[in-house]
Amino acid sequence: MKDLKNYIEANKDRFLEELFSLIRIPSISSQEEHKEDMVRCANRWKELILAAGADKCEVMPTEGNPVVYAEKIIDSTLPTVLVYGHYDVMPVDPEELWKTKPFEPVVKDGKIWARGADDDKGQSFMHAKAFEYMVKTNQLPCNVKFMLEGEEEIGSGSLYGFCEKNKQMLKADIILVSDTGMIATDIPSITTGLRGLSYLEVEVTGPNKDLHSGIFGGAVANPINILCQMIASLTNEKNEIAIPHFYDDVLVLSAEERALMAKAPFNLEEYKKSLDIDEVHGEEGYSTIERTGIRPTLDVCGIWGGYTGEGSKTVLPSKANAKISMRLVPNQDSQKISALFQKHFESIAPASVKVKVTPCHGGEAYVSPIDMPAYKAAEKAYETTFGKRPIPTRSGGSIPIISGFERILGIKSILMGFGLGEDAIHSPNENYKLEHFFKGIETIPYFYKFYAELMK
Amino acid sequence: MKDLKNYIEANKDRFLEELFSLIRIPSISSQEEHKEDMVRCANRWKELILAAGADKCEVMPTEGNPVVYAEKIIDSTLPTVLVYGHYDVMPVDPEELWKTKPFEPVVKDGKIWARGADDDKGQSFMHAKAFEYMVKTNQLPCNVKFMLEGEEEIGSGSLYGFCEKNKQMLKADIILVSDTGMIATDIPSITTGLRGLSYLEVEVTGPNKDLHSGIFGGAVANPINILCQMIASLTNEKNEIAIPHFYDDVLVLSAEERALMAKAPFNLEEYKKSLDIDEVHGEEGYSTIERTGIRPTLDVCGIWGGYTGEGSKTVLPSKANAKISMRLVPNQDSQKISALFQKHFESIAPASVKVKVTPCHGGEAYVSPIDMPAYKAAEKAYETTFGKRPIPTRSGGSIPIISGFERILGIKSILMGFGLGEDAIHSPNENYKLEHFFKGIETIPYFYKFYAELMK
Repeated sequence: MKDLKNYIEANKDRFLEELFSLIRIPSISSQEEHKEDMVRCANRWKELILAAGADKCEVMPTEGNPVVYAEKIIDSTLPTVLVYGHYDVMPVDPEELWKTKPFEPVVKDGKIWARGADDDKGQSFMHAKAFEYMVKTNQLPCNVKFMLEGEEEIGSGSLYGFCEKNKQMLKADIILVSDTGMIATDIPSITTGLRGLSYLEVEVTGPNKDLHSGIFGGAVANPINILCQMIASLTNEKNEIAIPHFYDDVLVLSAEERALMAKAPFNLEEYKKSLDIDEVHGEEGYSTIERTGIRPTLDVCGIWGGYTGEGSKTVLPSKANAKISMRLVPNQDSQKISALFQKHFESIAPASVKVKVTPCHGGEAYVSPIDMPAYKAAEKAYETTFGKRPIPTRSGGSIPIISGFERILGIKSILMGFGLGEDAIHSPNENYKLEHFFKGIETIPYFYKFYAELMK
Repeated sequence: MKDLKNYIEANKDRFLEELFSLIRIPSISSQEEHKEDMVRCANRWKELILAAGADKCEVMPTEGNPVVYAEKIIDSTLPTVLVYGHYDVMPVDPEELWKTKPFEPVVKDGKIWARGADDDKGQSFMHAKAFEYMVKTNQLPCNVKFMLEGEEEIGSGSLYGFCEKNKQMLKADIILVSDTGMIATDIPSITTGLRGLSYLEVEVTGPNKDLHSGIFGGAVANPINILCQMIASLTNEKNEIAIPHFYDDVLVLSAEERALMAKAPFNLEEYKKSLDIDEVHGEEGYSTIERTGIRPTLDVCGIWGGYTGEGSKTVLPSKANAKISMRLVPNQDSQKISALFQKHFESIAPASVKVKVTPCHGGEAYVSPIDMPAYKAAEKAYETTFGKRPIPTRSGGSIPIISGFERILGIKSILMGFGLGEDAIHSPNENYKLEHFFKGIETIPYFYKFYAELMK
């Protein structure tokens, strides 16, 4: 593979232009108005993956957004790698905080700036280009399948059924995913754990219409005050989650395991500085890395109620709403947690209000064993291109479908993420380092090479 | 005044058409985009008040929205009545809940439906028409001055200075105001107390940008969770306000006074039914009437933060905001309370967030003595037109400028409100009973008559 670097160098601009053609399509899966953009984005992927060397590619309908499926089968005795990624992106609001337009990618300061630059258009497209290199230079050592979905950011609702229906087509030895991050540019890492997720929406209704806060205030329950009280009561003074039985299934790590985790490089002062905070904040008795890696959380992702416009309006509103996300750890069951939440939240509502809880989406946590051939192949690939052995880490994020793959297809995943914490995924000014994009394209072919060797 | 009823009957349609011409101007004082509508509304008032019989009328500039001032001085030995009202209205959101367009008044089911139908265009315009009757039929027994402001709903910011500057011009024996309500159509009442107000906006900032709730959740303070905890801590389990020294200046009513208040007609079951609530909610140890009449409150009028759009977004937001209103009772000082709130709110913020508190507007509570001539004149006027002696009541609402009038001009106010609790002022579908509009026009001239007699 000594021509790999040259191949990337010679095709750099084209690679970026092709990626930008994907980014320019505003494929926001959570917003109904972008329904057609989802199909456009899937079709553009099809063109690009066929051009990269796939034998066949289909945009396959699901109950929701289509799945792009492609393959190149060279020899049934060789191992098969199934590349998974997603072409949908997060909403862009608050749009006024973006320094460039979210769907007009710009290269500046060595980074691509756009929604989806990292998550997951930039990362998943590295696989198309690594694949192109192996095909065009006749160095492909495995069969390859691609599966790109359009609902990852809203919980992969249709992909579970798609997998059930297409088990045969999706048969593979390993699922290869770039949708996570690494510790730092000079500290490669492989994600060996993902948190699960329960996401719910709650609505508190007080009076049947907005009231004058003077005439009724003090005598009628204010749904915002009540919602705040209810949310506040969901955590205790140790910042533990105060929902009964919430921690029942959480696996407790041994002192040795925690000591090992503590060895991962982490600079608390730099972390605080990068976020402009004076103090971190989380569950008592755990470090920052543990709080995001091995402990569950409860975050309000959105809240609204009453008058939120300019100036002041003295209103006692009828309703208040919140969106609440709980990140779960291995062995916690997302549906069970959603049910516990719902039951508890309903039970703590005072008689003066009505409460509605709507579970939105969820998924299970995932743990990747570090002794499987794919992990070892990935480790060697990073060593080759970064000159350093990667560190296994647990991410605080969730890719619920990963545990779904294991359950439905019986296939493990290897998470070779090249993003950085500073990439602002899900936030305004999402970006992806050019260096990481190209380093990813360079590292992936080595994974295939070592994986084929280890699977012989 | 035996021609009064006939005069009203003969001019009914014109009265309504004139009122509608005021209502159709969307004079929302809290929204910058309606700046020109404020001037248009003031000018329309000028036309109408001159046509009604004022000797002169001027739209006078202030630092903010203009004040409409008019007068008819017939004899300097007669008492002078200063009519106060406001031509600005509340915002209309949530607009989707309106059954008719807020600024296109409709008469249906015996009511006028529109923003400002009651508060305060409908109520203040009754005075213009009562005045017209007395002028056109040569039965005006007092000098009359009119002062209509355009900032009542945002705290009357400019009117304080306007009063300071125009003390001589505004000289009067009593200020007459219709900007409150009465108990029921068949139970006339006079408002003898108003609550004061402190209105503040708070902002809690966590990280300097929106973060991925998976990667950072659990380790970085979520400003929504924190804001909820801070708001929840502002009240205790007895629904008392937990800000130190908040109650220091609250006057405690005697058992006799409370027993007298308890005699006012009030049907708790009907109250709950009309609001579609199973239980009322307020400070332990006080009745519903006491909670709004003699006790201070703390209500969140608006809250917002994070993702509030369609679907789900897993974000740990950078900021969360709320608008908070505290209703105050006589002897509490609005600036002192705002300062107590600010100091307390800043003090309870954890080190992991930054907090900004912005006082918006405020005003003092007001108590009207029931032994002054104006009260007795009003009492007799209601007795004449309603056939019942009106009940003195304390409103939970605030008209901060009323206590300002007393402080700056040294003039007491008499609050002859004809609104009903069901009028949905400040809410979607504001309305005003036609019967009350016309009954107000009928009652007001009697007030002038009896007041002139009592002041002889």
